Amino acid sequence: MDPFLQAAISEAAAGLSEGGIPIGSVLVRQGIILGRGHNRRMQQGNPILHGEMDALQNAGRLPAHIYRECTLYTTLSPCPMCSGAILLYGIPRVIIGENQTFMGEEELLKSRGVQIEVVQSPKCVDLMRRFIEANPTVWNEDIGET
Amino acid sequence: MDPFLQAAISEAAAGLSEGGIPIGSVLVRQGIILGRGHNRRMQQGNPILHGEMDALQNAGRLPAHIYRECTLYTTLSPCPMCSGAILLYGIPRVIIGENQTFMGEEELLKSRGVQIEVVQSPKCVDLMRRFIEANPTVWNEDIGET
Repeated sequence: MDPFLQAAISEAAAGLSEGGIPIGSVLVRQGIILGRGHNRRMQQGNPILHGEMDALQNAGRLPAHIYRECTLYTTLSPCPMCSGAILLYGIPRVIIGENQTFMGEEELLKSRGVQIEVVQSPKCVDLMRRFIEANPTVWNEDIGET
Repeated sequence: MDPFLQAAISEAAAGLSEGGIPIGSVLVRQGIILGRGHNRRMQQGNPILHGEMDALQNAGRLPAHIYRECTLYTTLSPCPMCSGAILLYGIPRVIIGENQTFMGEEELLKSRGVQIEVVQSPKCVDLMRRFIEANPTVWNEDIGET
């Protein structure tokens, strides 16, 4: 498997082990991970720390030309907030672990020129499917549904 | 002036006094401020803490039905990231201090049914205009332009 998607999955697994929602992400430029993170809603009571946002936060302040050479890996199709962050910073490429358990704003991203690749990783699907079955209320809170 | 826009301006002024970018926001439900915040890029070296995101973070975890009764006040037209957060959580109404110094994703928000009101507050314009003139590089970093 792509080592960067594997790193994102490791982040998702770390989140699960902390009692959190298993979604992870890494920001990669020229073969180097600039930032990595995972969803921290449960751990920090924080509604803005989706996995992708946590990875961007952990990468710290970067100039636009760096973001424009990056690929964002995420275990799950990015929601409107995370897709908006991708658009804000002009990240040109997003590798998505799966979009079977949740379909994010892939069409919006594509319409703005972002290159999207969906891996449909069984490991990513399994992590989310188990979590959602066990914790439907938490999951629906995370995507603004209940 | 609307006391909630005034509260958002007070947040922006607090950010400026800390050496930060003067953008503030409050999340309001039924006449009560649930969360307030301001841009903390400079203060925390954090690229995801735009004013609106900080207000949402400070409001903490909320169920969807609460967000759906909220109005988000922001001193500046919301960027793609903050607009995405508004869409994620289904916040139905956004009051914008001004959109003269930066035009965010107002059209996207409107196309998804979000009610937008732009006040064009001279105070909001003045805060941003002075900051951008004095700190163009920081500002362009904040909107992913340089």
